[in-house]
Amino acid sequence: MAYFETVSKISYEGSRSTNPYAFKFYNPKEIVAGKTMEEHLKFAMAYWHTLTAGGSDPFGAETAVRAWDRLSTLDKAKARAEAAFEFMEKMDLQYYCFHDVDIAPEGASLREFYSNIDTIVDILEQGMKASGKKLLWNTANMFTNPRYMHGAGSTCNADVYAHAAAQVKKGLEVGKRLGADNYVFWGGREGYETLLNTNMSLEQDNIARLFSMAVDYAKEIGFEGQFLIEPKPKEPTKHQYDFDAATCIAFLQKYNLDKHFKLNLEANHATLAGHTFEHELHVARINGMLGSLDANQGDPLLGWDTDEFPASIYDSTLTLYEVLKNDGLGKGGINFDSKVRRPSFEPEDLFLAHISGMDIYAKGLKVAAKLLEDGVFENFIAERYSSFNEGIGADIVSGKATLASLADYALNNESPRPNKSGRQELLRATLNQYILTVE
Amino acid sequence: MAYFETVSKISYEGSRSTNPYAFKFYNPKEIVAGKTMEEHLKFAMAYWHTLTAGGSDPFGAETAVRAWDRLSTLDKAKARAEAAFEFMEKMDLQYYCFHDVDIAPEGASLREFYSNIDTIVDILEQGMKASGKKLLWNTANMFTNPRYMHGAGSTCNADVYAHAAAQVKKGLEVGKRLGADNYVFWGGREGYETLLNTNMSLEQDNIARLFSMAVDYAKEIGFEGQFLIEPKPKEPTKHQYDFDAATCIAFLQKYNLDKHFKLNLEANHATLAGHTFEHELHVARINGMLGSLDANQGDPLLGWDTDEFPASIYDSTLTLYEVLKNDGLGKGGINFDSKVRRPSFEPEDLFLAHISGMDIYAKGLKVAAKLLEDGVFENFIAERYSSFNEGIGADIVSGKATLASLADYALNNESPRPNKSGRQELLRATLNQYILTVE
Amino acid sequence: MAYFETVSKISYEGSRSTNPYAFKFYNPKEIVAGKTMEEHLKFAMAYWHTLTAGGSDPFGAETAVRAWDRLSTLDKAKARAEAAFEFMEKMDLQYYCFHDVDIAPEGASLREFYSNIDTIVDILEQGMKASGKKLLWNTANMFTNPRYMHGAGSTCNADVYAHAAAQVKKGLEVGKRLGADNYVFWGGREGYETLLNTNMSLEQDNIARLFSMAVDYAKEIGFEGQFLIEPKPKEPTKHQYDFDAATCIAFLQKYNLDKHFKLNLEANHATLAGHTFEHELHVARINGMLGSLDANQGDPLLGWDTDEFPASIYDSTLTLYEVLKNDGLGKGGINFDSKVRRPSFEPEDLFLAHISGMDIYAKGLKVAAKLLEDGVFENFIAERYSSFNEGIGADIVSGKATLASLADYALNNESPRPNKSGRQELLRATLNQYILTVE
Amino acid sequence: MAYFETVSKISYEGSRSTNPYAFKFYNPKEIVAGKTMEEHLKFAMAYWHTLTAGGSDPFGAETAVRAWDRLSTLDKAKARAEAAFEFMEKMDLQYYCFHDVDIAPEGASLREFYSNIDTIVDILEQGMKASGKKLLWNTANMFTNPRYMHGAGSTCNADVYAHAAAQVKKGLEVGKRLGADNYVFWGGREGYETLLNTNMSLEQDNIARLFSMAVDYAKEIGFEGQFLIEPKPKEPTKHQYDFDAATCIAFLQKYNLDKHFKLNLEANHATLAGHTFEHELHVARINGMLGSLDANQGDPLLGWDTDEFPASIYDSTLTLYEVLKNDGLGKGGINFDSKVRRPSFEPEDLFLAHISGMDIYAKGLKVAAKLLEDGVFENFIAERYSSFNEGIGADIVSGKATLASLADYALNNESPRPNKSGRQELLRATLNQYILTVE
Repeated sequence: MAYFETVSKISYEGSRSTNPYAFKFYNPKEIVAGKTMEEHLKFAMAYWHTLTAGGSDPFGAETAVRAWDRLSTLDKAKARAEAAFEFMEKMDLQYYCFHDVDIAPEGASLREFYSNIDTIVDILEQGMKASGKKLLWNTANMFTNPRYMHGAGSTCNADVYAHAAAQVKKGLEVGKRLGADNYVFWGGREGYETLLNTNMSLEQDNIARLFSMAVDYAKEIGFEGQFLIEPKPKEPTKHQYDFDAATCIAFLQKYNLDKHFKLNLEANHATLAGHTFEHELHVARINGMLGSLDANQGDPLLGWDTDEFPASIYDSTLTLYEVLKNDGLGKGGINFDSKVRRPSFEPEDLFLAHISGMDIYAKGLKVAAKLLEDGVFENFIAERYSSFNEGIGADIVSGKATLASLADYALNNESPRPNKSGRQELLRATLNQYILTVE
Repeated sequence: MAYFETVSKISYEGSRSTNPYAFKFYNPKEIVAGKTMEEHLKFAMAYWHTLTAGGSDPFGAETAVRAWDRLSTLDKAKARAEAAFEFMEKMDLQYYCFHDVDIAPEGASLREFYSNIDTIVDILEQGMKASGKKLLWNTANMFTNPRYMHGAGSTCNADVYAHAAAQVKKGLEVGKRLGADNYVFWGGREGYETLLNTNMSLEQDNIARLFSMAVDYAKEIGFEGQFLIEPKPKEPTKHQYDFDAATCIAFLQKYNLDKHFKLNLEANHATLAGHTFEHELHVARINGMLGSLDANQGDPLLGWDTDEFPASIYDSTLTLYEVLKNDGLGKGGINFDSKVRRPSFEPEDLFLAHISGMDIYAKGLKVAAKLLEDGVFENFIAERYSSFNEGIGADIVSGKATLASLADYALNNESPRPNKSGRQELLRATLNQYILTVE
Repeated sequence: MAYFETVSKISYEGSRSTNPYAFKFYNPKEIVAGKTMEEHLKFAMAYWHTLTAGGSDPFGAETAVRAWDRLSTLDKAKARAEAAFEFMEKMDLQYYCFHDVDIAPEGASLREFYSNIDTIVDILEQGMKASGKKLLWNTANMFTNPRYMHGAGSTCNADVYAHAAAQVKKGLEVGKRLGADNYVFWGGREGYETLLNTNMSLEQDNIARLFSMAVDYAKEIGFEGQFLIEPKPKEPTKHQYDFDAATCIAFLQKYNLDKHFKLNLEANHATLAGHTFEHELHVARINGMLGSLDANQGDPLLGWDTDEFPASIYDSTLTLYEVLKNDGLGKGGINFDSKVRRPSFEPEDLFLAHISGMDIYAKGLKVAAKLLEDGVFENFIAERYSSFNEGIGADIVSGKATLASLADYALNNESPRPNKSGRQELLRATLNQYILTVE
Repeated sequence: MAYFETVSKISYEGSRSTNPYAFKFYNPKEIVAGKTMEEHLKFAMAYWHTLTAGGSDPFGAETAVRAWDRLSTLDKAKARAEAAFEFMEKMDLQYYCFHDVDIAPEGASLREFYSNIDTIVDILEQGMKASGKKLLWNTANMFTNPRYMHGAGSTCNADVYAHAAAQVKKGLEVGKRLGADNYVFWGGREGYETLLNTNMSLEQDNIARLFSMAVDYAKEIGFEGQFLIEPKPKEPTKHQYDFDAATCIAFLQKYNLDKHFKLNLEANHATLAGHTFEHELHVARINGMLGSLDANQGDPLLGWDTDEFPASIYDSTLTLYEVLKNDGLGKGGINFDSKVRRPSFEPEDLFLAHISGMDIYAKGLKVAAKLLEDGVFENFIAERYSSFNEGIGADIVSGKATLASLADYALNNESPRPNKSGRQELLRATLNQYILTVE
């Protein structure tokens, strides 16, 4: 336990504390809406951003200063695995998530990769046993390696497809061994650069085939985690197939995979798709597909995945509002798929950033719970749609009405009951009032 | 026939003509890929942009100068109905499209609206008989009237819903009477302004109920047109439910409406959704949902529906490419949902604009046909994915492969056949060469 | 005083009030950073949104229900002028702003327009005298009338230019008569639709000439208000010349107008230009050009001017932060260039919306003042740049350093003092802490 | 000469050739508008994209396969320097451009970097002498190294500033030695991530100081190249100071640097700023600031710098139109700041991509020249603004008019000469006709 020497376990000091290494709003044992905060908020550390990545961007080299910088490849991987538990312990995080290449070097062959994975999974398994930390989900990185330049499930090269399948197989085995709650597919290169060279129909069929094989293999080995796919548009291919929640639902319905999959939704991906995060959660929720969250935020004025730590009380409140309406996330959780800014290169920034994210989600949870407890929006909505509870409205909802019966009604009720204001400004002001006054 | 006195029938003079009132590329009887141009290109006049609208924008009053400007309401409607045929005749357009409110004033009551519609439909029917012009599709405007401020099928007010149903009923009757090839739903106000006051689940269920009633009523009265829904994001509500093709497909699948509906795709709506138009056509095509087109273009640097006349040879070529791959549009056609710019306020501009749009589509058709004839992209694609035709690739496609069999293969074929370049730059250059040299 | 019968004077009840018609955070006499809230926050009513507009959008007719709906044109104008004072009185607003066409009908000729303006200005003058309300600024609407389809100062038609000049002349006279603190130019149609028909150089020269004439005429008649231009991109012309603050500054510098003009900055216009509002204020401030504010907010996921009432505590805090750093706005103020949503069509919504906006600005003021009082960001910044206070850094700032002296220094100091983290995550968390705890 | 063995010198075979390694439209000795194509089109190879970069993106490792892949660092640099001339020779490119770090490894110290630069510059100088190739411009990369995480000219660390100055000094010396026509500043990290930690005023002052020192040093050593700054928004910092052409002009005017600098404009940067490329050229041109071009294209549906090879005949035509109107680019040229797509990883793609770019510019040149020769747009524009040539219009332009004289005129000319249509649709159709028929 010596990878983050300069930072001690984060303390709980409350909203007036001036200690930067203290939570201001998060308190794991505090009861909100009948459960503890940590039951509501299954926060997870993203292995890649926190331990593997180094802050490079398309115009700049890595900046991060880490204790393992000078170690050789496999030793570095081992150090990171140990550092993971130190970090989770100090941050009071109970979960983590990883891609296969985050934890282990790929080596010179698939066989060597398998072996490296096993080496590190031994360390992780031991660490989990010792610490009680849990694996929210794992996945296979099928996008970084040049092999996947044309896609993985959507590749034009059958050998590459086989290699992807081999990674998924190993991923499910690792998931089973470490007791992962979920297995995630994020279709890094599943999309196209130009239609001029693309067989979209075959590519999507093949992706569906890979998903079906994964479902079958999970059954075969007794892996009981929830399968998740993660919508994202625009990056890294010009057109990713999993554009947004609705697009993923269309895909899952088409291939009869909707019974086996839910969605892992990410805030920044919603922004890139032209949606709010609460929209994506809402769409998933009313379709029974809300699985898990990648907590972060994008910049609405930029056009790429900035993966910033969440810092908006509006977003966290409305996110938790949907989660509470969904009665929680089931096997899912809240993974910080967030990275420190490139100039925040010091180890301390990793802690400060997680504090900021956990705090804003904690505060959002409290505001959301209070809004629901007071029925602020729910009562307004119930009243607003009440005309569908009786008379012609009830006939519509029950399926009794026809175009003819409705036209007849309309002709004989020429002055419809006047509309009432939607009161958007008042509702927003009320949201502000709750945000700024809920303790 | 005196509404467009200053313009005569548009002539066919070919690519070197300096006459602005001549087609340069469009020639209805010219054979392309085994059919005449006019068989490929079922161009339609949009009644609203060409005859009803006046060029206002959020910061400016109407500018258009039209022959019927000083007539009273119903006389104006009659004049427009007559002008429609003069315009189609001079432009050599065989089809048109309208919303109910485009052709007839709403009057003081639904009953009066029905009556006004009947009056104008008499004129249209007569005009169609005399001229042979056809109705590509009609629809009901359920968005402009203040009644629909909260939506039509998605309204929170049951009386408003009934009124919408009455408009749809009349629309189907009009469609049957005029022999419309299609009936379109564009969900003008079907979406939400803020989730804080919205019951999205009920709203979407209710929209689906309205669609089902329409399907039932069409069957009842023997209307055999194709039903279409038109994807659009962002306008006029902050979040329209019919965001894009994939979202519409998800909706239709969920409510078992996919057998009854296809998509009416618009170029500018694709742009607003963050897609290219050819992407939307491609998605619809491989899902068997490509119904009809609203031809126009947006401005990728602006964020709203500019509805400009199509003017890009790239877009028209790639659009027609998808249409040819789909073996045409069936009952669908190509409706110019395009408006002249506000400063193009003279009647002459209506002609010049349609010429520009028809010409660029005509040229695009010829380029697309030649690309297909030469197998330029098709052959490249076939070769690119050929590894799925045999061996392990064929096992994947046939469903014979499993994660285990693929992992086994991968472990024993450690050096996958190397990828080949996607050659995007060459393919684009070839597209340019075809565009710039096909005659 | 009977135009808003259902709403009484807004009360001050504090943050826990459940009365929707009470301020929660705004209290005009409360002292913040040494001045009263109303001295800091010179709120103004926008005549156009509050009294003249009706809620239409490109796809929908007007929805607003107002007491003067059934009056004839000039009577309606008189009623609005009276209603203005009732509204300001009930809302506790001390200022208002208008375009000429907001207050008076244009009539059939310029002469009649002048006369109508005089009629209404009589009423306004009397109302101001009676109530003590003040005119923050006025302006001429040189964009709505079809005459201005090609621009006003940038028109291609000299007669149209003369008409614009006539409106500006009258505007300055009205400003002088009513004691306006500022005169604003917003270049509604000053831009271009396509370069293919545009002489940008002449157009910009002509705009500058119009501004110079205005400066001269103000001097001639003794009008002492501050001249302001308002940056905006993209709307209504495809490319507005006054894209953003920097573009306006370049223009004013080029034509030697920078001594006579400051900027009137609008939040939604910043969003459309790809900037944050605080960026625009900051740029104006460090160039000595921060004049006045149009308070509203856009939707970062939409591409047009939504002009929503401000509802973000982040935006209001950072806006007021810049204002406090600027030592206030001088003659400028905070005009609610904001409109109620189309479905918020009831008169009550006008009040609820202004309450929401005034409250969020009031709270933002308090947070900003506390951040400055505690030196939260200022101290961090001072420390961050401290290397420029001495040694080689001081040489750079003083102008003493040269490339040669710096290269020499660099060669002899091969290991630069290490960079320090920018601490963005901590600073954001601190901002959240202040927002969520400042009382 | 063995780095690109599989490709021979590109041939000139004309528009019907099916040889992918032949120019279809470019022919260096062909006369267009009185000069040869190669005089108009001073194409340059971008050293970084063509020789140094490897195709990585934020989600993927390098894919490029190059002859020098297995060489050690300095040998790789030497091989690239030799390959540069082979590539230019085969492609018929006369110019190239580089950043210091493109050509030489940074080594362990500034001293070592200087030495490595000298080593490679020796090779380049020799190669230039032997081949006659020329250096269009060079620059210093002051953004990739972690040292510049907070900026170079805008850094908060004086030692870092000194290091930047040392790179600029060396860059000017190299430019002088190699006879560079220009020296470019692209402000990679000159901008900010968050205003919360930024002193924008000091940062901009310091950038200006660096520019002034460079001007002074150039004079001192007799470097006579043109200084250029390159506008770019959004990347890599959230807000780059050199947002667009207008912003750069404002900056240069403010610091009295406008006499010493012109602009190096890039197509993709224009897109990111919300402008068309022709807009940026036009703005620079009418301000006398059009210096040089970075030829590429972005994707209007994506939000980052895709740096694709130019492939649009519209963009190339309108770009060359502005260049011809500017009477050429003076010392400037057309640098392909363009990279092959990541899946276009084979050496052949470098050639195919440059062919595509050179061809589309060649064709655009011919179309633009013909449009100007025929006065297509120029005559329309002259006629459109003709009211400013006489009468009241002439008074406006000459400065004789005042608000009073214009108002007087307007009152006595109540019916302004009617506006005429802007004819945007016709003009676009004409542009299409020229593009599709000019040989």
